[in-house]
Parts: sequence; C-alpha cells; structure tokens
Amino acid sequence: MDQLVGTINAVKGTPDLAKFKFRSSSRWDGGAREHTTIKSFYGAGQEDATRTESFVLEGDEPAVLLGSNAAPNAVEAVLHALSSCMTVSFIYPAAAQGINVESLEYTMEGDLDLHGFLHLSDRVRPGFQNIRVKAKVRADAPREKIQELLQYATNTSPVMDTLRNPVPVSVELQE
Amino acid sequence: MDQLVGTINAVKGTPDLAKFKFRSSSRWDGGAREHTTIKSFYGAGQEDATRTESFVLEGDEPAVLLGSNAAPNAVEAVLHALSSCMTVSFIYPAAAQGINVESLEYTMEGDLDLHGFLHLSDRVRPGFQNIRVKAKVRADAPREKIQELLQYATNTSPVMDTLRNPVPVSVELQE
Repeated sequence: MDQLVGTINAVKGTPDLAKFKFRSSSRWDGGAREHTTIKSFYGAGQEDATRTESFVLEGDEPAVLLGSNAAPNAVEAVLHALSSCMTVSFIYPAAAQGINVESLEYTMEGDLDLHGFLHLSDRVRPGFQNIRVKAKVRADAPREKIQELLQYATNTSPVMDTLRNPVPVSVELQE
Repeated sequence: MDQLVGTINAVKGTPDLAKFKFRSSSRWDGGAREHTTIKSFYGAGQEDATRTESFVLEGDEPAVLLGSNAAPNAVEAVLHALSSCMTVSFIYPAAAQGINVESLEYTMEGDLDLHGFLHLSDRVRPGFQNIRVKAKVRADAPREKIQELLQYATNTSPVMDTLRNPVPVSVELQE
C-alpha cells in the first residue's frame, strides 16, 4: 500500500515515469507450436535491470485446430492475460483502501467463430465476438463495496481496455 | 495441409462446426500473483475430450509495478497471445500453399502509460496505446509472397482482430 502511494506520488511529480514499453520475442517451433520469450521492458524512466532471467510462454493448438495440444492456444492466452490484469486491478485498490481480500477468482468464456480465421466469410470477425467474465470474491467488505472495486478494476485494467477498445497494431516485415 | 482442407470443407458443409467457446479459470496467489488454469473448450460441435491435463499460466508484476517478478505481467501475456496467433495465422496458409517455412520470428513492443491504470488521468487510456510487430521470415518464396502471407495473417489472426477492434466484455460478480 505504501509502495502504491509512493508510485502514485512519483508519477504525479514526473509524468514521464508512467511511460512503459513492454516487449516480447517469439519463435516458431514447428506445427502450431511457438514459444515467446519475455524479459526486458522500459519503465519509470529506465530500462529494467531487476529481471535476471527470461520468462518463456508456449503456444500450441488442440488437435481439432491442427495442433499437438502441448500448450494453450493464442485466444486462451488472451483470457489468461485478462485474468492476470483483472486480478492486479482489483487487488491494488483493495489494498490501498485497507480491504482484506481472502480470495479472488475469475472464470472467463469467449465466443469465437472460425469462419473469420479460415477466411470463409468477410462478415464474421476472426477474433472474440464476446467475452464473459465472472468474479468470485471473499473479502471483509460489504457486497456493494466489492461491486464498486470490481467496477473500478474493469475501468482501469490495461488488458480490459486493450480488449474493449481498438489498439493500433503495426506489422512490418524485416529483411 | 490435408487436415486444413478437411476442416475448411467441414465448416463449409456445417457452419455451426466453426463455433468455439474458449475458457479459463484463475485464482489470486497473493501480491500481484495469480495463476490461470486452461483446459475445457467447446468446438466443432462438441465439448473437447482430447485434453487430459490442464495448462497453467502464471502472472505477476516486476518490482517497479509492486510485484515479485515471478512471471510475466498481463500486458506481456497479451504480446505472447498475439505472437502465438500470428504464428499459426502465417504458418497454416503457408503450408496450404506448399511454401516451406524454415523459420518465423516476431518481436513486439507496446507502449503503455500508467496514468490510466493509476486513475491519475481520464485522458490517458489504461491499455496499450500502440503495438509494433516485426516479423522475420525465412522461406522458399519470394519476398512479395512472404509479404502477402504476412498481410493475410494480419487480416485473419483472431488475436490481431481482438486487439485492433472492440470486443464486448461483460463482468459479473457472483454470490
């Protein structure tokens, strides 16, 4: 909580501290498989020096989508990203308000129609048509307060915003 | 390649086979940490029965974002999801066209300003402001064909569409 207040005050004093750049690099591993390496990022005015090792996340597809079922697929990884983000976006403000959270769980489900991915229809979008998030919270706060925190998390979650609103993505082929 | 053609013909004959539902469930592990469990999905007209074990993905934050640096954070997981999706969305049509891909790599970088997440400004969105994708491909095809495949992948990738265009996300607090 003290850390969060410190961060907020630092950003108020020096707005550029709030600018972050996150990065990844990935490599195809045959079939539907790939792995993504995550380590460096820029933020709070400098390149990060605290991560000593890289994280590796793997992707694959189930057999019905022509993969070997070795890892979650890409759209399932989106649900993980949203879960991770909605967790932090709920827990930090709860802690700042002195609310003791015992447990926080999200279950998510998203609808996707393969007509877009398979290029069989221009009327069907390739991506998620809808995502439904259900939250289960145990905390020493009345239900109204928990509902308010959940709404706050929904409004401030970077991944929620990334999904609900358009993000410009540029794609460039290198030599 | 035969499998892909089979899938396309099956979907053409029975459009409902293209309807998928992907799912996740997550649990907060203290601090900024959570883990997401991924197993069941619905698709091709039935609940999947091929996955015998669950996949687990973990989330955390670096110290500067008040975490313990145990796992990639949520927005880094978004870059992984996009990498995984752009891999499949490039490789499948390449295979269908008989192009031999030797290697495929993506590097990605996204800009994020914490003013939104910290609720310090209503004018700064919480999510990614931009994502830049760079692709490096080695394949037995002329550069124009590779560029065409990359454009095709960009147009049909479910995660690319999920990021570039708005997705309705509902959030419900359970009892």
